[in-house]
This record gives sequence, structure tokens and C-alpha cells, in this order.
Amino acid sequence: MAENSGIVFVGRKPAMSYVLAVITSMSASNAKEITLKARGRAITTAVDVAEITRNRFIKDLKIDKIAIGTEELPPREGENRARMVSTMEITLKKE
Amino acid sequence: MAENSGIVFVGRKPAMSYVLAVITSMSASNAKEITLKARGRAITTAVDVAEITRNRFIKDLKIDKIAIGTEELPPREGENRARMVSTMEITLKKE
Repeated sequence: MAENSGIVFVGRKPAMSYVLAVITSMSASNAKEITLKARGRAITTAVDVAEITRNRFIKDLKIDKIAIGTEELPPREGENRARMVSTMEITLKKE
Repeated sequence: MAENSGIVFVGRKPAMSYVLAVITSMSASNAKEITLKARGRAITTAVDVAEITRNRFIKDLKIDKIAIGTEELPPREGENRARMVSTMEITLKKE
């Protein structure tokens, strides 16, 4: 759960860990904007994080931008094909 | 895998089933636009479907709009709390 200049990387932890990271990061830095980044299975968690934060905690948070993409990961050991993985970025902005 | 007026509902099948549905639907109806709808864990699959279709099959397909939201599902048997589930809609458009 890294946090750098308004970015929260969403991984395998439960959504609430990242919701907390977003809330902490936004109140600590008084930031107006935060971006959630996720790939693969964590994409669903990133959407949950955005929705939970918006609906339950920071009501004036709006979805500013959603982008999807593809990243190439090196092949697993014993395989020789690169793996393609989907990525997602959700930018949330305070009004 | 329902298809209605340019909508493909993404569920638990492998991404390629839905990629095929998108390609079939777009070429049959000569439609310029198609929307992928998914909720919960299928959100990741929907992103995969959009990326695979765009990168490998219909190169002039652009992401027109991405929206996320929350839906309330009735409680499971024996439970009494409604479940909240994240939803996603990806609209793809031919140039």
C-alpha cells in the first residue's frame, strides 16, 4: 500500500485498507485529488474502494477520470510468453 | 451472455466468450457503439474484454466512456443485510 503524491496502489488487501489510505492521504496533505491504480484482479477492489469512499466517507468526492489499459509482464518461470494484464486508474477529486 | 441493443453483460465466463460477443454484435448490426456491463468480480473481466477487443481485433475501437456505480442486492438467505456491489459500464465506439 504505497502512497506517493496522491497515488494509492490497490493490491490484494481488503478494500477497507485502501479506503483508509485514501482518507488518510487526503486529510493529511489536504489534497484535492487522489488516483487509485490497480491491475488484474485488483481492478474490482479499486472500484469498490472508490465507491465506498465516495458513498460512505467523503461525500463531496467525485469521479474525475477513469482510464483502462494493458501492461506487459515478464513471463513466469518455465514459461516463455509475456503475460498481458489489464490496468485501471481512477482519479477522485474533491469539489 | 445477453445482447440487447448494443449491450453485452459480462459475467463469469472466460473473457474470450465476451470478446466474441462484442465482435459478432458489432459486425451483425453494423453498430458503431457497444456497452459492456459488469458487476462485482466480473468488472476485471469487462476491462479485459475491452482491452483484448481493442488491441487484438477491432483496432479502430476507442473507449468512449467508463462509468462506475453501486447496486444494492437483496440479502442472501439467512442474512438480513442488503449487499452492496460495485458496477461498471464501458462504452466502446468505432471511429
